[in-house]
Amino acid sequence: MDLTLSENQYNLVYNSLSFVIAAMGAALIFFLLVRSRVAPRHRMALTLSTLVVAIALYHYFRIFDSWSAAFSYVGGEYVQDGEPFNEGYRYVDWLLTVPLLLAELVVVLKLSKGKTRSLLIRLTIAAIAMILLGWPGEVADPDSTARTIWGVASTIPFLYILYVLFIELGRSLDRQSAGVRKLVDGLRYIILATWGVYPLAYIAPSVIDNEATAEVVRQVGYSVADVLAKPLFGILIFAIALAKSREDGYVMPGDTPQEDTQVPDDVSELT
Amino acid sequence: MDLTLSENQYNLVYNSLSFVIAAMGAALIFFLLVRSRVAPRHRMALTLSTLVVAIALYHYFRIFDSWSAAFSYVGGEYVQDGEPFNEGYRYVDWLLTVPLLLAELVVVLKLSKGKTRSLLIRLTIAAIAMILLGWPGEVADPDSTARTIWGVASTIPFLYILYVLFIELGRSLDRQSAGVRKLVDGLRYIILATWGVYPLAYIAPSVIDNEATAEVVRQVGYSVADVLAKPLFGILIFAIALAKSREDGYVMPGDTPQEDTQVPDDVSELT
Repeated sequence: MDLTLSENQYNLVYNSLSFVIAAMGAALIFFLLVRSRVAPRHRMALTLSTLVVAIALYHYFRIFDSWSAAFSYVGGEYVQDGEPFNEGYRYVDWLLTVPLLLAELVVVLKLSKGKTRSLLIRLTIAAIAMILLGWPGEVADPDSTARTIWGVASTIPFLYILYVLFIELGRSLDRQSAGVRKLVDGLRYIILATWGVYPLAYIAPSVIDNEATAEVVRQVGYSVADVLAKPLFGILIFAIALAKSREDGYVMPGDTPQEDTQVPDDVSELT
Repeated sequence: MDLTLSENQYNLVYNSLSFVIAAMGAALIFFLLVRSRVAPRHRMALTLSTLVVAIALYHYFRIFDSWSAAFSYVGGEYVQDGEPFNEGYRYVDWLLTVPLLLAELVVVLKLSKGKTRSLLIRLTIAAIAMILLGWPGEVADPDSTARTIWGVASTIPFLYILYVLFIELGRSLDRQSAGVRKLVDGLRYIILATWGVYPLAYIAPSVIDNEATAEVVRQVGYSVADVLAKPLFGILIFAIALAKSREDGYVMPGDTPQEDTQVPDDVSELT
């Protein structure tokens, strides 16, 4: 490798990785604290969100340390002369968290047992295939045909996941309330938008000639995508679980079943 | 850089950073322990306070380590000869915590859903703009025009936040009880006073000629401001949530609904 980064380039990645650690840690505490606001029967989705950010928190500590150890500060620049930076942490993380993320969405909908089981099995297999097929391309030479071929191969299960979420799951949403349907709709577009960042980060080394710039774009891209796909996704799953809990008439232990709003929603009264 | 600090200067920053770690850690435990004193429906504000101090605790551990690693003890002085001190941690911290701090204040008031949503969106955007605009100035040369320009640009969203809190939010306080109104009033002045320390720390390198003194003032200033703006602010948010819980007639599970004071309120009887 022997990559040389400017102080700003190195720090942009360094601070992005640290930002993700803080975001995952905060999300972990958040999901644990708001747990009791959701009816017990809707808590499994929240449990999965908690696992996802905990697993990512662990991996980002490792990624951060691997990044710091790979570079030395020499004459105002950062030279990659230590042990190689381990990109593998990301793929191990995704191998665990991507099936869990898809399971969050399936579980929170409370579809029939048969439908849930069938979706979980197919989405898990597709997610694992997507990640395993991406890995050989990730470690291949940036300009090699191998990188392109593995990238394309990895895109096939990705498209299958999108097909399941947008076409097949769409048919199962009729029984959900209008409020929940709207939240699920938003969630699917977040998957589309944030999961779209991963392929862009993946192809960065192939389309950006400057090796240092490509590496910075890739690392920052993956980091931003992880924050959107895990804590933000989990917060929306929590919103769905909360909406469904309220529809079920669930009241938190110790709480009075009164409305949240003590004032009318009419904004004109407030201006 | 090659900053040289006297033992006292170095230690003042070092001990200030350690003080903040202790304060954030204590606040984290406090917010977790007093959680059940607040009615479930008022706990979201407390949850946000907990996240803020947890995120800051993480960052101050990093800031402390970065400070220690940046200097060597040579001949009775501290010479900055290691990796550069990473000022970025503070900005990453604020990027996460300032929107959460503003959300604490909005959420605890329990305004209408529409008003809450509108305030949260606008205050979050303004907070992020304020921090992102400050960053290029922070890393610019102390005497450069760039530092002044970015500083002024960052002040515009800051003034907008103050406008929302003092003018717009003021109109929404009519429906709050006198006790809560008084607490919110105090809170807004604390925001004004403590957030005012940040710009002072920011301009320190431009107005103080001695580089070492300027760095010490800046680091101690940011540290003191963070303790006031996070743990102290959170305690006041807790006081508001507690007052509102009592107004709602909330009694802690397992507690008897008797008064806290067992002695007569008439002080003359006690003297």
